[in-house]
Amino acid sequence: MKPIKLHGQPIGELNQPLICTPLVGKTPEAVLSELAVVLPKQPDVIEWRVDFFDEIANTATVVQVAHSLKQAAGGTPIIFTCRAMHEGGERIPLDGAGVVQLYVAVCASRAVDFIDYEMSNPAQDIAAVRQASRANNLAMIMSYHNFQATPEGEALVAKFAEAERLGADIAKVAVMPKSPGDVLTLLGAVWRADEAGSIPLIGMSMGGFGAVSRMVGGVFGSALTFAVGKSASAPGQIPIEDLRIALSTVGRSVAGK
Amino acid sequence: MKPIKLHGQPIGELNQPLICTPLVGKTPEAVLSELAVVLPKQPDVIEWRVDFFDEIANTATVVQVAHSLKQAAGGTPIIFTCRAMHEGGERIPLDGAGVVQLYVAVCASRAVDFIDYEMSNPAQDIAAVRQASRANNLAMIMSYHNFQATPEGEALVAKFAEAERLGADIAKVAVMPKSPGDVLTLLGAVWRADEAGSIPLIGMSMGGFGAVSRMVGGVFGSALTFAVGKSASAPGQIPIEDLRIALSTVGRSVAGK
Repeated sequence: MKPIKLHGQPIGELNQPLICTPLVGKTPEAVLSELAVVLPKQPDVIEWRVDFFDEIANTATVVQVAHSLKQAAGGTPIIFTCRAMHEGGERIPLDGAGVVQLYVAVCASRAVDFIDYEMSNPAQDIAAVRQASRANNLAMIMSYHNFQATPEGEALVAKFAEAERLGADIAKVAVMPKSPGDVLTLLGAVWRADEAGSIPLIGMSMGGFGAVSRMVGGVFGSALTFAVGKSASAPGQIPIEDLRIALSTVGRSVAGK
Repeated sequence: MKPIKLHGQPIGELNQPLICTPLVGKTPEAVLSELAVVLPKQPDVIEWRVDFFDEIANTATVVQVAHSLKQAAGGTPIIFTCRAMHEGGERIPLDGAGVVQLYVAVCASRAVDFIDYEMSNPAQDIAAVRQASRANNLAMIMSYHNFQATPEGEALVAKFAEAERLGADIAKVAVMPKSPGDVLTLLGAVWRADEAGSIPLIGMSMGGFGAVSRMVGGVFGSALTFAVGKSASAPGQIPIEDLRIALSTVGRSVAGK
């Protein structure tokens, strides 16, 4: 597993995937109160899923809330994510250009540490968001989600490689299994992509049996796993307390302790 | 996952792999005191690894200890296993014929519930042990172990199928991974064999990263997992307390709770 870095420094514990908890509140108050519930559970990273936020079209409010979150998070890094609807996000009143402008404004505010943007976006939008994040020293996750099925392993490996080719700092792939075998396809793709590539990867299989990938993905090269702090943002997420215990058991077992 | 049955009744919790803890004592006192340590941890099954037992060549003593274990185990089923040295067992003063006679005597005593015997034994020995176990209503696990490496997935699927063809009640395959990818090969083989076959399966990948297979194997069809009660009998076994928590997290996640 290649560790996720911030300003050149690995974050979290050595050889342990980071635990990230999403915030999915609709209002500034809801998001901040979620953060207050989540922080004592000590996630390594917080993800603000701004597509859940009612005032997403008000850039000034979004930037203001991002600043408030950063201040309240007290050093816990924040991922800013506007998940597209066709990749599992909420319906939002912004078009593609509006989303790019929002990312550019949030990057310029430097109120967050990471951004996550889908590879399915137009090439020039990806380039614009990449440029804004780079100019402001924010790490960029490029992601692919499939809530319907799990593509073939080779296609998943290709998605990870595409993110690296597009200049991502981190590549993320999240797919839905139709059978336990599909969970192995995802884990195998993470493993092969991690062997082949040079950036940190995040990979998970969603839903019921996919949940095991959230526990053991680190062994196969996935550097971050999402857990429920207060509310889930995708199917199969495990409560942070349970996930932390499972990760600790995995970590000790792998180390032979 | 097909549940492991005893006298026609599934044992353990529905849709949860059984937890089995091995006993590896060298003397009657050691084995019984191990059982006393292990029982309060409530394993579903106990395995007596008689190849660790100093007096293995004294059939009367072995049968006597088996009876003592059964009495002390108070209903927790017991697997009787003389693991062959070339499959990871201890050096013992019995030859193949002596081992068969020991199995036949222990079957006749009916002091145990299951026996485990390797498929690598000569066909007539497997037949003799199968006959003795069947005549005494004991369930028979037929097993394959590879402590050096993980064969190809198809070869592992074939091992599970071979056990069923040989008349096993339960098929077991335990192999050593050289990479995390090998762990997925084992889990995938369990999954495909479980789809194809009709008897319960036990599959695990050993050693450090193989340990994750002991936690998540149930999702892929493995009906039993070995945990450390007092002492491990193979590399990668997890303490029963930790394993139970991990299995519970897996169980709740898969059920979407």
